[in-house]
Amino acid sequence: MAGNSFGTLFRFTTWGESHGPAIGVVVDGVPPRLPLSEPDIQRWLDKRKPGQSRFTTQRREEDLVRILSGVFDGVTTGTPIQLLIENTDQRSKDYRNIADRFRPGHADFSYWKKYGVRDYRGGGRASARETASRVAAGAVARAILGPAITIRGALVQIGPHPIDRGAWDWQAIEENPFWCPDAAMALRWADFLDSIRKAGSSAGAAIEIVASGVPAGLGEPIYDKLDGDLARALMTINAVKGVEIGAGFGAAALRGEENADEMRMADGRVVFLSNNAGGILGGISTGQDIVVRFAVKPTSSILTPMRTVDADGNEVEIATHGRHDPCVGIRAVPVGEAMVACVLADHLLRHRALGGEI
Amino acid sequence: MAGNSFGTLFRFTTWGESHGPAIGVVVDGVPPRLPLSEPDIQRWLDKRKPGQSRFTTQRREEDLVRILSGVFDGVTTGTPIQLLIENTDQRSKDYRNIADRFRPGHADFSYWKKYGVRDYRGGGRASARETASRVAAGAVARAILGPAITIRGALVQIGPHPIDRGAWDWQAIEENPFWCPDAAMALRWADFLDSIRKAGSSAGAAIEIVASGVPAGLGEPIYDKLDGDLARALMTINAVKGVEIGAGFGAAALRGEENADEMRMADGRVVFLSNNAGGILGGISTGQDIVVRFAVKPTSSILTPMRTVDADGNEVEIATHGRHDPCVGIRAVPVGEAMVACVLADHLLRHRALGGEI
Amino acid sequence: MAGNSFGTLFRFTTWGESHGPAIGVVVDGVPPRLPLSEPDIQRWLDKRKPGQSRFTTQRREEDLVRILSGVFDGVTTGTPIQLLIENTDQRSKDYRNIADRFRPGHADFSYWKKYGVRDYRGGGRASARETASRVAAGAVARAILGPAITIRGALVQIGPHPIDRGAWDWQAIEENPFWCPDAAMALRWADFLDSIRKAGSSAGAAIEIVASGVPAGLGEPIYDKLDGDLARALMTINAVKGVEIGAGFGAAALRGEENADEMRMADGRVVFLSNNAGGILGGISTGQDIVVRFAVKPTSSILTPMRTVDADGNEVEIATHGRHDPCVGIRAVPVGEAMVACVLADHLLRHRALGGEI
Amino acid sequence: MAGNSFGTLFRFTTWGESHGPAIGVVVDGVPPRLPLSEPDIQRWLDKRKPGQSRFTTQRREEDLVRILSGVFDGVTTGTPIQLLIENTDQRSKDYRNIADRFRPGHADFSYWKKYGVRDYRGGGRASARETASRVAAGAVARAILGPAITIRGALVQIGPHPIDRGAWDWQAIEENPFWCPDAAMALRWADFLDSIRKAGSSAGAAIEIVASGVPAGLGEPIYDKLDGDLARALMTINAVKGVEIGAGFGAAALRGEENADEMRMADGRVVFLSNNAGGILGGISTGQDIVVRFAVKPTSSILTPMRTVDADGNEVEIATHGRHDPCVGIRAVPVGEAMVACVLADHLLRHRALGGEI
Repeated sequence: MAGNSFGTLFRFTTWGESHGPAIGVVVDGVPPRLPLSEPDIQRWLDKRKPGQSRFTTQRREEDLVRILSGVFDGVTTGTPIQLLIENTDQRSKDYRNIADRFRPGHADFSYWKKYGVRDYRGGGRASARETASRVAAGAVARAILGPAITIRGALVQIGPHPIDRGAWDWQAIEENPFWCPDAAMALRWADFLDSIRKAGSSAGAAIEIVASGVPAGLGEPIYDKLDGDLARALMTINAVKGVEIGAGFGAAALRGEENADEMRMADGRVVFLSNNAGGILGGISTGQDIVVRFAVKPTSSILTPMRTVDADGNEVEIATHGRHDPCVGIRAVPVGEAMVACVLADHLLRHRALGGEI
Repeated sequence: MAGNSFGTLFRFTTWGESHGPAIGVVVDGVPPRLPLSEPDIQRWLDKRKPGQSRFTTQRREEDLVRILSGVFDGVTTGTPIQLLIENTDQRSKDYRNIADRFRPGHADFSYWKKYGVRDYRGGGRASARETASRVAAGAVARAILGPAITIRGALVQIGPHPIDRGAWDWQAIEENPFWCPDAAMALRWADFLDSIRKAGSSAGAAIEIVASGVPAGLGEPIYDKLDGDLARALMTINAVKGVEIGAGFGAAALRGEENADEMRMADGRVVFLSNNAGGILGGISTGQDIVVRFAVKPTSSILTPMRTVDADGNEVEIATHGRHDPCVGIRAVPVGEAMVACVLADHLLRHRALGGEI
Repeated sequence: MAGNSFGTLFRFTTWGESHGPAIGVVVDGVPPRLPLSEPDIQRWLDKRKPGQSRFTTQRREEDLVRILSGVFDGVTTGTPIQLLIENTDQRSKDYRNIADRFRPGHADFSYWKKYGVRDYRGGGRASARETASRVAAGAVARAILGPAITIRGALVQIGPHPIDRGAWDWQAIEENPFWCPDAAMALRWADFLDSIRKAGSSAGAAIEIVASGVPAGLGEPIYDKLDGDLARALMTINAVKGVEIGAGFGAAALRGEENADEMRMADGRVVFLSNNAGGILGGISTGQDIVVRFAVKPTSSILTPMRTVDADGNEVEIATHGRHDPCVGIRAVPVGEAMVACVLADHLLRHRALGGEI
Repeated sequence: MAGNSFGTLFRFTTWGESHGPAIGVVVDGVPPRLPLSEPDIQRWLDKRKPGQSRFTTQRREEDLVRILSGVFDGVTTGTPIQLLIENTDQRSKDYRNIADRFRPGHADFSYWKKYGVRDYRGGGRASARETASRVAAGAVARAILGPAITIRGALVQIGPHPIDRGAWDWQAIEENPFWCPDAAMALRWADFLDSIRKAGSSAGAAIEIVASGVPAGLGEPIYDKLDGDLARALMTINAVKGVEIGAGFGAAALRGEENADEMRMADGRVVFLSNNAGGILGGISTGQDIVVRFAVKPTSSILTPMRTVDADGNEVEIATHGRHDPCVGIRAVPVGEAMVACVLADHLLRHRALGGEI
């Protein structure tokens, strides 16, 4: 109840600090007899792993995952799955000088006010390193969802530069270091981020996640709406400041007849002529693609000196010299995918509990 | 677990259909010895009540609330508080002709796919009438928060017309039928909505909620972040398609040094020079104003005929003739306030549980 | 989270005080399309209703239940079911003289210490009247379990007089006012209770609940064991002081080979030669009858004067003159059945969620 | 939700199989700034550790605990505490011959029916080895409770031999291998258990846990009663078949005036003349000692051959040759203490959340 768990039937709890011996996640509520192995999880962790291009932090974590429980003879047993990732490249000394200073944009101040104590090394528990555990949990969620449901993420904006949605090509996201579906924009972002990094600054971003093949009927009405849970899931990722579904904030400017997605029959099935709903009506999936977007603020750890205060109430200057991502939005793509997978897996089980066909 | 409850320590469960005998909410987790009476709750329900201007539905519900339990001699006893609101102006016959047709933009289709049965009268459980229960729960939440914490909402956009934020005046919101803080824009909205209504159409909107006086330290890290819970709380309100905190989606376009709110000392206290964070860092309140916005899609019930399908797989035409709000965003203002109050009350109790000073 | 809810997927929340306007329960997590009507619930409430013999309280409550939501056209819709029971025969003046005195054996003192305020009329929330809401919820649970699962309760001890288990006859329980399966003992109990009542005293009791037809596989390992949930369910009924499963406390005196229930094959199915396990192994049902027993202390409200203290710290004498059951264990039988039904319904849904066949 | 978590505000999740690489527990909801170190936890694990006398299993596990997160500079940080215990003395080959056979009294059959797969080595997840994780969590709970609350357990019956309660001496429990408060009975139990072991059999037991110094007011009314949660907590320990509070099942035989604990004033405080309530009234602590007892069935793993069936439906004979406790009740004492500590810590935080003084 102190906030380190996510989900109801498919429920995971993460633990571990950025510079402790290890981080990990225990996943409970996994149905039995699902094939699962360490490589099934590792492939998603590798996607998130730092140090893969000059646009992400140079911290070198192998992020090798070990399954400590819940899997026997290659399949899940229905018992909790503990996934452990050792921390191997901590440089805690980097953080000594900021132990008592509240870095602007970071959780230093609010953790201090809440707990009166904090593991200041690398942000401790507030570090984005925690998201590796989310990605591991997401890999288990995908095992539940099965191959008929695909979840793909793309970076759709860096700084003031959104992609051209007309140029969207899912193939392109594998071919540039940004998971960008617009190949031309990816080149422009590279230049932009180089300039940002040289300036000792950082950039924000927006990510879009699309889930295809989701059956109609997932989501519980009222407070456990599928979009409500997705909003919470994505908003809890480090640095996220906004979440929208389908037409999102754009819907505010639409008229009723523009916004409502009309239905037709095609080959004996209901089809929609548009998807302003983002695949969700009344909190319940319609069978259309589920489309969510979230905004990530620029990395708060920047070389540019800023002014702040310390725990003793002195006004001080601070510049963050550790190894940081100039745009945390890039590595947020696999994290967003994982959180969407976890929400869907949970609601799949919940729907089945009440007799729903899946 | 079927989704009709909200909150952890301060936890309420709503029930009731739009056209059943009554709706209501049972609120559990209320500390004892708080003064509470029916008028304390009624005043907020009156703010949401339909039929107060030509810009909201003409359905006439008195929305009189009765306290059935949990209050004795004018104070809460610590036991669950049942609040009941009778439905008095149902015109169920209005809905007969849509019993088998899936209205575009409504939850008709998704409920049908999920449950195979639904109370079609007025949307049944999916009706925005459910939000009256949220407002009632929010009134109890305010009793927990006390007078030092204020929660105010404002409509900041209708259709393509956002307010001029420079003209923001909290006083103005009580003086126009839109809770609009920009008096000039309120006049323009009146004209706009008249034209929308005459055209048999509807308009979307955006709402901003500001909570002041919230102590630092509320919110649990990682998955129960204060902003995560606010995002879920607001996204689960009918017709909401997006939620953002502080700089929100705008943060994607900022540079690190623009976004990070610097701190200074003033009169022995920490102050921030800006509030891009929206009062929340690392999921925990900082003591600044908490600022959230959400987008509401245009009302899906419109006179303009649209094409859709029915439960038998026929393509049909539909026009909704019932009494509906041309812009549901207006009445969403007190609902948004209520949900923010509920999230804050819950986290206040949670913070106190772990020894936090409040 | 303040304790007025029970269950995870099948989850209900009760509310209401003994002498308020009404009591009730909202049941969430009910699958759609189950036939349900007020008479389906009323029949179980009638079984618990006071005033049916000289051995239960003479308080006259009709306990008529109304379904306010969640049922449409005779079937459940999947939305929350609010069941309301009006209080019609309160005599609050009976309780004025005990408003400030802590009745021994009652919750007066502990509620006072916890809340600093209480609705003293008839025990308020702590009254056994709350169990009517449990019985109503249990009726909904039975609709989920279906006719193949039967849950029957019997009184097996009053005061120092246990039944002769060799004389067990399920038919007999309908033919005496005690739900006693031993017809001869029922006669003896009548005499015993008459003497107890005339003496201004009260008697304890033990109840046994048997659930037949429960499929193997219900229950979650470790902390949500089926027997763990049953123990909690029954221990939370007013006045219960002990719960046991199968051989129960008697198992402490057995040797390993006496206790272990051997298995054989019969007609291609696994059968057990005994049922010391009470139908549960490792927290999971085996397909055998589930057998639980619970002990109820003697009614604390007695005419015999006792000494106690009041809220001001004075030593005082108290005798309870209201209308009370000389043996609350009698009316605890349908309550115990209801709680077992609720636990089984919850675990049935939970098992199905993880892919279990039911 | 799949049953591997316990508690609400103080909430822990255990994971790991008997013969996997490790077991462990993640504890969430621990207030910050509490002193906690590995030795604080190890001392309780040592109390439960196997192989300390000839009356417990000869399996040699060091049960060394490592704190992987949540503690920094010797104090808790408010973030989740992962405690890991490596498995060092697995002899998995001992279990090959029982992989397909359902041992009577064990969870083999019910797990098979539930999951269709199981880690058969040493009982896998159903092994009492899981209780080491409970003991570790209990040590953290004790850090929350502080020194003013003491929780002590004693074995009060082995097989048909209960202690003489008049001879109760807390000092004695440290001086015999049974945690027996009756020194004379401890000698008799030694003889009894030697004979049981030589006969290839096993014995049941009963354990009593006493919590002193618990403030009045802990426990939530109705479904989260303190005794309800204790009943669940203890019933979920491996092999437990019954739980009782205070007078327990004996209360069924009492008369109202015998059972009700009268109150008096002494030195300005309320005192009770007896404790049939076991320190709990209406589900809420009264300030008296909390007294609970639970019954443990005889170890199901015995050398004496028994008949059973296998997964293919054959009737077979089975004798369990691994290393097992002749009386699992002995090592259940520290486990019972730990579970009581966890329940109390949880309710302490819950009480504080609602404004209770603690």
